[in-house]
Amino acid sequence: MYTVDLNSDLGESFGAYKIGMDSAVIPLVSSANVACGFHAGDPSVMAKTVQLCKDSQSAIGAHPGYPDLVGFGRRNMAVSPADVKAMVTYQIGALDAFCKAAGIRLQHVKPHGAMYNMAAKDEALAKAICQAIYEYDKDLILMGLANSQMLVQAKAMGLRCAAEVFADRAYEEDGTLVARTKPGSMIEDEDLAVSRVVRMIKEGKVTAITGKDIDITADSVCVHGDGPKALAFVGKLRDAFAAEGIEVAPLSQIVK
Amino acid sequence: MYTVDLNSDLGESFGAYKIGMDSAVIPLVSSANVACGFHAGDPSVMAKTVQLCKDSQSAIGAHPGYPDLVGFGRRNMAVSPADVKAMVTYQIGALDAFCKAAGIRLQHVKPHGAMYNMAAKDEALAKAICQAIYEYDKDLILMGLANSQMLVQAKAMGLRCAAEVFADRAYEEDGTLVARTKPGSMIEDEDLAVSRVVRMIKEGKVTAITGKDIDITADSVCVHGDGPKALAFVGKLRDAFAAEGIEVAPLSQIVK
Amino acid sequence: MYTVDLNSDLGESFGAYKIGMDSAVIPLVSSANVACGFHAGDPSVMAKTVQLCKDSQSAIGAHPGYPDLVGFGRRNMAVSPADVKAMVTYQIGALDAFCKAAGIRLQHVKPHGAMYNMAAKDEALAKAICQAIYEYDKDLILMGLANSQMLVQAKAMGLRCAAEVFADRAYEEDGTLVARTKPGSMIEDEDLAVSRVVRMIKEGKVTAITGKDIDITADSVCVHGDGPKALAFVGKLRDAFAAEGIEVAPLSQIVK
Amino acid sequence: MYTVDLNSDLGESFGAYKIGMDSAVIPLVSSANVACGFHAGDPSVMAKTVQLCKDSQSAIGAHPGYPDLVGFGRRNMAVSPADVKAMVTYQIGALDAFCKAAGIRLQHVKPHGAMYNMAAKDEALAKAICQAIYEYDKDLILMGLANSQMLVQAKAMGLRCAAEVFADRAYEEDGTLVARTKPGSMIEDEDLAVSRVVRMIKEGKVTAITGKDIDITADSVCVHGDGPKALAFVGKLRDAFAAEGIEVAPLSQIVK
Repeated sequence: MYTVDLNSDLGESFGAYKIGMDSAVIPLVSSANVACGFHAGDPSVMAKTVQLCKDSQSAIGAHPGYPDLVGFGRRNMAVSPADVKAMVTYQIGALDAFCKAAGIRLQHVKPHGAMYNMAAKDEALAKAICQAIYEYDKDLILMGLANSQMLVQAKAMGLRCAAEVFADRAYEEDGTLVARTKPGSMIEDEDLAVSRVVRMIKEGKVTAITGKDIDITADSVCVHGDGPKALAFVGKLRDAFAAEGIEVAPLSQIVK
Repeated sequence: MYTVDLNSDLGESFGAYKIGMDSAVIPLVSSANVACGFHAGDPSVMAKTVQLCKDSQSAIGAHPGYPDLVGFGRRNMAVSPADVKAMVTYQIGALDAFCKAAGIRLQHVKPHGAMYNMAAKDEALAKAICQAIYEYDKDLILMGLANSQMLVQAKAMGLRCAAEVFADRAYEEDGTLVARTKPGSMIEDEDLAVSRVVRMIKEGKVTAITGKDIDITADSVCVHGDGPKALAFVGKLRDAFAAEGIEVAPLSQIVK
Repeated sequence: MYTVDLNSDLGESFGAYKIGMDSAVIPLVSSANVACGFHAGDPSVMAKTVQLCKDSQSAIGAHPGYPDLVGFGRRNMAVSPADVKAMVTYQIGALDAFCKAAGIRLQHVKPHGAMYNMAAKDEALAKAICQAIYEYDKDLILMGLANSQMLVQAKAMGLRCAAEVFADRAYEEDGTLVARTKPGSMIEDEDLAVSRVVRMIKEGKVTAITGKDIDITADSVCVHGDGPKALAFVGKLRDAFAAEGIEVAPLSQIVK
Repeated sequence: MYTVDLNSDLGESFGAYKIGMDSAVIPLVSSANVACGFHAGDPSVMAKTVQLCKDSQSAIGAHPGYPDLVGFGRRNMAVSPADVKAMVTYQIGALDAFCKAAGIRLQHVKPHGAMYNMAAKDEALAKAICQAIYEYDKDLILMGLANSQMLVQAKAMGLRCAAEVFADRAYEEDGTLVARTKPGSMIEDEDLAVSRVVRMIKEGKVTAITGKDIDITADSVCVHGDGPKALAFVGKLRDAFAAEGIEVAPLSQIVK
């Protein structure tokens, strides 16, 4: 029997600005990454998103990002590891406050956008993020890119961690994602995307862009909720999982 | 034997901008109100301030404010009670994260500036703030203006609360502060300020601006740390307390 | 022959956040009020919006607001007249920079949301806003609520001004808008809304909520572009204007 | 006869936060670089700073930066050239609004911090900044690091530009600044710093960190105003200039 987590980035609306189809996506995922007010989200949106997750019994994770609302946290910023550590601590606590008030338990932390990408490769940054999580609550789970420095640092520290894979992205031979600027970086054929994910889960393998098979751990699959097409793909993925005997379950049931 | 808490607003620096003499003030107070990043403070300043408080064994409180950095949280804003509740929850959690990481316990919450003043008179606002605190952790203490709606609402809810008094401010007959725009609103004679505070603590009385004596509860006295003169006044106050048999202790030892 | 300006609030997107149907609305209005980055809009959105207006030959106005992105500039803030003056100067200059770069001339300034509403009644605030505009460029036109303090102050200063009316709002006998919280504040019957506007333009009269006819000047009519229904209403209004011999023209051709 | 401009970064206070000794520095410099609200400064500070410059007859330049108040614009950010162009246009216009209101003319634009440093080496970024300036007002002067891409791009575009040198920094053989992280990057001996600047102005030469003499153009010297020591150094520099027959004059009198 196989199990996998489905996660999505949620709670990204801000004031009068709406992004995402949260009430439709939340029931489809086992883990929700909730924005914490730095790159997206605001306190009232966070309160509402946590309540939606509670109603759907989706597990909740903090989704901290850089303080760059206009750039949606997607622009690299040269922030020192000490400052990143403090901003991760801050954002975890802010989100966890809504969980505590709602009587539920925070499950995981997944850095967002540029912070996620930079920390996948930067040892000092990855370590700072893991320390923030560990010092706040050593029972939380870090979710990071499969084969990344974030997972290396979490394991070294004794912090539980989950490897995240992407259905719609190509991989290099070293297990990193092919940069979006390169041709072939996106897997646009949905059937191929689904079958690649199924193989990652069942065999722990994926074919890199070079054609070579590489090892990959798939604890959680990232899905999007920013439009009807994205939602339909989640349904397709869940159907394939059902047919293949793969059960969807939150991270806390997958990661030891 | 009398006891009273001494509190001060701290951690108000932001990035390259420094305000206050925190390392000098923290050892002089029993309770520190630490800014939470909305009207002042940033994650790295919060980490450092919490560490300073831990080193001095000063108790820590969250000091949430309106999201108005350029106005330092001092400008009234027409924010709905639901939005204020969410922003208080957010800020408490953000500060508490640094306390958790440092292995210490958050003691109290004191709203800042315009939020403090508006909630002193506005029942719905006061109730929203108390609910945010109570739902986050019902063992926290709300610190509010003596005789204010904040204390009324906290008591009605079963939330512990502390009455704050000001050494340098005149009082109206109804127990509220005389508006700063009125003549006589500030007590500029330091000896008079000290003797008024001593009387509030020992007799539970203060002479209002009209000349009439009124009842007042003084669980905590607010002191400032924004200059050498302010620091000297704290010393003067502590000397008077020692001479009068008034012990300084954190709120958690004063409020039942 | 009658002429009237049609204006709409535009350029309100921010970073990854999209609001409004700007490319559809801009060709339908004679004057565009473009957000300036405080309550909505960002520099890249402003550059794009100014270009869209230039392409459609719609006149451009600055739409300054309070620094409250999460509240969309709709929450009253107790900002001093001196600070409001400075923030209006700042925002006018910021928007005008894109006009200068595009080789077009800024036509008007219309304050947004809470700033617009507060300045309609507050003499000092209205005066500060008018001074900011006059000192920046005395040939600009202030657009303000018909019968408001903003128009009174502009006229006293020798600043050109335009009276704005609303098709979908009821009026009090003193010419102010009926508060949204009161029953009957919105004119929901579209045919009635159209005929009221036509009468305001041709007769200078509108029936107040009390039933009494009052005087009103209609230099510009505010229309919305936040959905298909709003867009359809603009078409309806333009059809009625054509049938009634009312020509749509930018403010600069209407205000002397 | 030699002439040189003295410039300093000013107007960096923000709300209740004070930085710099502006009223003491402004009379000592010929050109003031005024922060525009993104990395430092706010509208009310800008209004006041422009007035101080007008009173001292110091020429005014816009000092645009990245939207990173907590990092004071000193952290590299991966912003696209198109977005940087828009944010420079915005900030120039915002500052120029205060100049227009005060009846004075904006003289130059000097990017701040990380934007300045990144654009010194990045051709696309440098070009975007120069285009923003040129399209806003082709008579403005760009101030950039001597020997940098910013000057290369400005010259290619026909935009007037000024080469800035630093008294307290060592230079590489290629004319770039030695990174602060390298030993020997700072010239700490004040007499040496003064004599190096005098030689840059009179001979157009400076000794690089390798010991080799290199060519350098010194149109403007950057001085600091963040403390009594920095102010004293400006006095020392002006005394040396007087003794050496070097006249201090604003950029507009130096750059053709």
